[in-house]
Amino acid sequence: MSLRILGIDPGSRITGYGVIEVEGPRQRWLAHGQIRCGEGEMAQRLLQILNELGALIREYAPQEAAVESVFVKRNVSSAIVLGQARGAAICALAGAGLSLAEYAPAQIKSAIVGQGRAEKAQVQHMIKALLKLRQAPPADAADALAVALCHAQLRSAPLPRAGRSGGRRWTLDQLTALTRGAKS
Amino acid sequence: MSLRILGIDPGSRITGYGVIEVEGPRQRWLAHGQIRCGEGEMAQRLLQILNELGALIREYAPQEAAVESVFVKRNVSSAIVLGQARGAAICALAGAGLSLAEYAPAQIKSAIVGQGRAEKAQVQHMIKALLKLRQAPPADAADALAVALCHAQLRSAPLPRAGRSGGRRWTLDQLTALTRGAKS
Repeated sequence: MSLRILGIDPGSRITGYGVIEVEGPRQRWLAHGQIRCGEGEMAQRLLQILNELGALIREYAPQEAAVESVFVKRNVSSAIVLGQARGAAICALAGAGLSLAEYAPAQIKSAIVGQGRAEKAQVQHMIKALLKLRQAPPADAADALAVALCHAQLRSAPLPRAGRSGGRRWTLDQLTALTRGAKS
Repeated sequence: MSLRILGIDPGSRITGYGVIEVEGPRQRWLAHGQIRCGEGEMAQRLLQILNELGALIREYAPQEAAVESVFVKRNVSSAIVLGQARGAAICALAGAGLSLAEYAPAQIKSAIVGQGRAEKAQVQHMIKALLKLRQAPPADAADALAVALCHAQLRSAPLPRAGRSGGRRWTLDQLTALTRGAKS
């Protein structure tokens, strides 16, 4: 039984997405990309997120979806704008009957890089390696693939949350073993 | 030519709505109510906002919509949650092809009560009087009707924004005259 997972990284200008398929210890890349909403009217941007994510869900038919829980660093105005983009994205997922899991940034980085405070470039590098891509995806698509991979690992075998001192560092083999463990 | 306006006051637990019809100097109440999402899973609550607003739009066929721009008082986490509810609501409006106007809280209070820092109870009282209702609507439905009325006044004859010292205080007759002015 394989499982398709859609990861998303919502934003009011660019929403990253990534689709992977996991089967036992294997995780296969299917797609990634960006929904680019530009600088137009906010209502039109949100509608574009809703519609394009809906089209992606029909095309790839994922069974589960995952999103990063929110950075609390930002200010209140940008939090509202980000929240609106998340609301549009979540509507697309819920409308298609997809269950939605949320993971904290530190959990995702810990799952992918083995360290809860990894840099964006490290996440992009590991995504390229884990999914055997020719080149690293743009940051928001890499983040979307990262949350999808994180969900593949954590959905049935929760790992301890990374503490402030940073989590474990895993090798590719260990990650594969973790995924296998999660499926058995 | 009459114009139907849908006002909304989005929230992750309760989304207030109100529908009015304006024609020349007259403004008529059509409906108000609450979309109550309870405490369940966030994705289901957002989908409920999207779907129930969609149904209201089909039922009342408003031509324009208005929403309060956001309070910046809140903390970042509640701003994200509120933003998500707004995103779902805006998707419902944009999906139905409705133009969406935004007004600052002080603009709305100033338009309804004549004072930018009016209390909620004053807004509810004025809404009851202006729309000749038997009783004051619940606060979120009153806020939704207030932004719809504000839009009726300001859509074609912008008023100066209420300053920190408070705006003008209008009587019912003046409000009616303002509305008439806006339509001529």
